[in-house]
Amino acid sequence: MGEFDLIEIIRARTAQGRDDVHLGIGDDAALLMPPAGHELAVCVDTLVEGVHFPVGTAPEDLGWKALAVNLSDLAAMGATPAWALLALTLPAADARYVERFADGFAQLARAHKLALVGGDTTQGPLGVSVTVLGFVPEGRALRRAGARPGDVVCVTGTLGDAAAGLRCLDRGDPQADRLLNAPPGTREYLLARLNRPTPRVAAGLALRGTASACIDVSDGLLADLGHLCAAGGVGAEIDAATLPMSSALLTLFDDAARLAFALAGGDDYELCFSVPPDRMAHATADLARLGCGVTRIGRIVEGDGVRVRDVRGQTLAPPRRGWEHFAA
Amino acid sequence: MGEFDLIEIIRARTAQGRDDVHLGIGDDAALLMPPAGHELAVCVDTLVEGVHFPVGTAPEDLGWKALAVNLSDLAAMGATPAWALLALTLPAADARYVERFADGFAQLARAHKLALVGGDTTQGPLGVSVTVLGFVPEGRALRRAGARPGDVVCVTGTLGDAAAGLRCLDRGDPQADRLLNAPPGTREYLLARLNRPTPRVAAGLALRGTASACIDVSDGLLADLGHLCAAGGVGAEIDAATLPMSSALLTLFDDAARLAFALAGGDDYELCFSVPPDRMAHATADLARLGCGVTRIGRIVEGDGVRVRDVRGQTLAPPRRGWEHFAA
Repeated sequence: MGEFDLIEIIRARTAQGRDDVHLGIGDDAALLMPPAGHELAVCVDTLVEGVHFPVGTAPEDLGWKALAVNLSDLAAMGATPAWALLALTLPAADARYVERFADGFAQLARAHKLALVGGDTTQGPLGVSVTVLGFVPEGRALRRAGARPGDVVCVTGTLGDAAAGLRCLDRGDPQADRLLNAPPGTREYLLARLNRPTPRVAAGLALRGTASACIDVSDGLLADLGHLCAAGGVGAEIDAATLPMSSALLTLFDDAARLAFALAGGDDYELCFSVPPDRMAHATADLARLGCGVTRIGRIVEGDGVRVRDVRGQTLAPPRRGWEHFAA
Repeated sequence: MGEFDLIEIIRARTAQGRDDVHLGIGDDAALLMPPAGHELAVCVDTLVEGVHFPVGTAPEDLGWKALAVNLSDLAAMGATPAWALLALTLPAADARYVERFADGFAQLARAHKLALVGGDTTQGPLGVSVTVLGFVPEGRALRRAGARPGDVVCVTGTLGDAAAGLRCLDRGDPQADRLLNAPPGTREYLLARLNRPTPRVAAGLALRGTASACIDVSDGLLADLGHLCAAGGVGAEIDAATLPMSSALLTLFDDAARLAFALAGGDDYELCFSVPPDRMAHATADLARLGCGVTRIGRIVEGDGVRVRDVRGQTLAPPRRGWEHFAA
């Protein structure tokens, strides 16, 4: 089983016809035709075993997630996904592993009519880098910069589920027994949120022209909203009591744990955005039409940094500033 | 030293102004403006420590090479490089390492006015994935497919140097002592060819409209010319005596060793192309104008596969079919 056989497995399982792919997998580079009048939105994210996903993650889940985290970045720009490249590093040439990985990848790719147009398989410690490319009409992209004092801060979906899912896998956790005996479906729900995040692509498109700034929540709400604030030269206040949480999270974890997960757990892949108050109803209606929940969690203020307030208006000491690689 | 500081080091050291970069490093995705009427050429290559580069490789060299191997793919398409994304995985957040890596990357990027527009730094075993994007006027790209029986097979520069350079680093090699006492500059030349390959970007552009098919030599001449033949449904005959070799390679290695390096060593990053006989003079003149050496090494024939013939016209048994990851 050589490199070229693995590439063929991936090519066959991810096939997706697109007229704008003039030359796909199999040459030195892909040849693609971007639409006129559009900017190209491009990003890359790497997942390393034991750092970004637990040892033992199913290959289907890894394939899905490696694409999802990148589509989430495009979603945060309000871009339409089109093409991807895959750099997959594997300890050994395991055809069955690659088939399963490609199936998970393809499942999400097909949902977005995204074509895998190139890549590289190499030998080494398990890791995957995906590059995605999408389009946005020129000048219409959502950016991190642009929030203004008085804007409302919102988030799609629920926060903290993925971090809670990761905790459910921790056999050393003092609550491990309780988590294993959780009500039916709760643990599974949280694990699915960890392993199969749903990038908010349609929501990102809907927010173009409405949101003043947008970012996806990958490192944790505090960290990512902090980036949005820094980019705009503003601060933000968050009301802890308004943070949206799933019933599974509410069922399995106490107040302190779920607040920590929601603020700083990361891996949420929800969109956090600011919107001027007079466009708030518009944003909510647009997202509701998509079946995408949205919650008002705070406001943009003068100054800098993100403050979290409890129900009595007291500032909470945040549990952590969010998850950052290499952080000491 | 966190992830964001490392990104800032890389951003500062690779700064390259381009009007078509509407939004560079620092948001969820870069926003780029491709030129009208052009196809986008996109590819990714990963280098893993101990697999694609020796442990102990200088970070400047790794930064250069990680970009060079990708620019070589664009060169093989006849594309003009424009933008890159960098996914760098490091065991620890070593600022000095990242500075040196970025300096090597930037040195080559500046030579091609290429802008680094995004990326990702993660913790894990040392490895780097670079995605490059370039342009080619629609329909004008060089491809692997297109060689016809009777076409001349050519290669730029010299072959086998990088593989010989790698051998020079092998302290277990029976000739290690002799190699350490090599004539001044010879060993260094081969190591520079290993660590600082020069992608043949200008040559690729010059071959548009002249070459009938093109590939870059990364896995070794036999393997890569084999891909070119397979893509075109043709075979090739190579005359071993015509393979271009550097004086350093001729000085340090015997006939059998240098033939093996030239045929199957890999890491050459030269262009191998086919050209109809009546355009051969044109191709040679165009490349000569660029100062790029070019050598006629054989011909395209009916059938399939690559045969190597010695000076008496006898078919040689090739040493290896070329270097392939995961090959047993």
